[in-house]
Amino acid sequence: MTLFTGLSAFPLTPTDDDGELKPELLQRFLERIVAAGADSIGLLGSTGGYAYLTPEVRKRTLRAAVECIAGRTPLIVGVGALTTDVAEDLARDAREAGADGLLLAPMSYQPLTDEEVFRHFEAVAAAGELPLCIYNNPGTTKFTFGPDLIARLAELPNVTAVKMPLPADGDYAGEMQRLRAMTPEDFAIGYSGDWGAKDALLAGGACWYSVVAGLLPEPARALTRAALAGNAADAERIDHAFAPLWALFREFGSFRVMFAITDILGFEPITPPRPILTLDQACHTRVEDALRPLLQVVV
Amino acid sequence: MTLFTGLSAFPLTPTDDDGELKPELLQRFLERIVAAGADSIGLLGSTGGYAYLTPEVRKRTLRAAVECIAGRTPLIVGVGALTTDVAEDLARDAREAGADGLLLAPMSYQPLTDEEVFRHFEAVAAAGELPLCIYNNPGTTKFTFGPDLIARLAELPNVTAVKMPLPADGDYAGEMQRLRAMTPEDFAIGYSGDWGAKDALLAGGACWYSVVAGLLPEPARALTRAALAGNAADAERIDHAFAPLWALFREFGSFRVMFAITDILGFEPITPPRPILTLDQACHTRVEDALRPLLQVVV
Repeated sequence: MTLFTGLSAFPLTPTDDDGELKPELLQRFLERIVAAGADSIGLLGSTGGYAYLTPEVRKRTLRAAVECIAGRTPLIVGVGALTTDVAEDLARDAREAGADGLLLAPMSYQPLTDEEVFRHFEAVAAAGELPLCIYNNPGTTKFTFGPDLIARLAELPNVTAVKMPLPADGDYAGEMQRLRAMTPEDFAIGYSGDWGAKDALLAGGACWYSVVAGLLPEPARALTRAALAGNAADAERIDHAFAPLWALFREFGSFRVMFAITDILGFEPITPPRPILTLDQACHTRVEDALRPLLQVVV
Repeated sequence: MTLFTGLSAFPLTPTDDDGELKPELLQRFLERIVAAGADSIGLLGSTGGYAYLTPEVRKRTLRAAVECIAGRTPLIVGVGALTTDVAEDLARDAREAGADGLLLAPMSYQPLTDEEVFRHFEAVAAAGELPLCIYNNPGTTKFTFGPDLIARLAELPNVTAVKMPLPADGDYAGEMQRLRAMTPEDFAIGYSGDWGAKDALLAGGACWYSVVAGLLPEPARALTRAALAGNAADAERIDHAFAPLWALFREFGSFRVMFAITDILGFEPITPPRPILTLDQACHTRVEDALRPLLQVVV
């Protein structure tokens, strides 16, 4: 398996009230992911709240993760930033710290042109000198990659994968067929959006970039294995157990729900970075109810 | 006139290749604005590229501006940030440094709920203890304020104005009538989007938050004075001279065009923060052509 394939688990980045990393808690999250046999770790992705952290905290987070993982699981790290300068610096730092790959989303304030995004990726991929996955996440970045831009980026050195959002029409197979025809043979097309993961993998997606696997890696790995083996019945069964949680991810955003899950799993309390709010007690109870079927999944 | 009324001019923040402020050039921009008699300066707005600057550079920029302006023109400063903590810190710093008012946009990565935006504004307005204008700029923040949220925010201490985007249906009067009915009597409703300024002011808008006035304050002031005096014919004439520039603002984004204008006006070369690219030579020539009619405006 190459780097951007299988189950990539995205942990939260736990911080205290001053925005400083809580390294022991991060390492507890990482140990669960390694133990469950995830294929990679997606550190400092959207779930890892990279957009809310200073470059200094991001660098410390990466070092704490490298120390804990110690090569047991490949480590991908998000290096997106509003400026190319900062993203280049983070990409260089990621290589120096020992990351295996990069994840780059085109964060934006002024809406970006295709040419600006291309040049940004070109610069950051060159600075990082590591395999890089295009983080296509219009829900947070407000930038949508068309197939032509993905194909152009896939020609760049180091750019070896894309993390796609779920297609609006649900036609995973058609979308992948179009993208495969435009990209090199070893270019890996994976998906995020946990509620579509089963369908994406069954349709031939290379990777599930998974929010939930950051805290519940075992059932996520079981779903991934079943789907990648073409075992649709098992994949459907496990996905069905996840369904109540998927509904809450869609209703409240997976980022907010993940913080509630840490609490329910008995980890020490952490809160999302303001302005993001902690879910209220009624929502919290609904997350608790949604987790129940997952405890019964045979993994 | 109160703080958030009349012509508010938004300068660029000139920086060098390392992202450090060029204070002398900033002060040259500010001197033009003061000399032209703008009613306020909107420092570190979207045109001032606040989203791309570190908090440290933003604080230094504010100090350089305060020193230069020396109370001659009221100074409003953008304190938006992806986290509430950083925005609160900038708001406190703005008061300490001597700003007259704050401009707050709900920058976002994870899409925000209305409640999250409300709490964010409540916290930042309390920290700043200065008159605060709600910066409603969906084109950059991807957050749209509904009238109910604006009305709720207008009840908060210090929140005294809103900077609205141009209404999609062009019905300025209708929109202002609805908002006035829901907000306190002294709440100021102004507009950004330079190409709609003439109509917004003629329809009773309290303020033009103007990009172009950052570099061409004289014709912008002439347009403002004509429109606020109800002199539609003069306002139309001046707006007509601006029309070629408005077309380029809409085509390329005003932020990119403003950098080309600095060059055409003969200031030392500055570039936008990457990933934003400098306009190419063909576009540059078009900006030059668009500026020509403005030199003939009698102000």
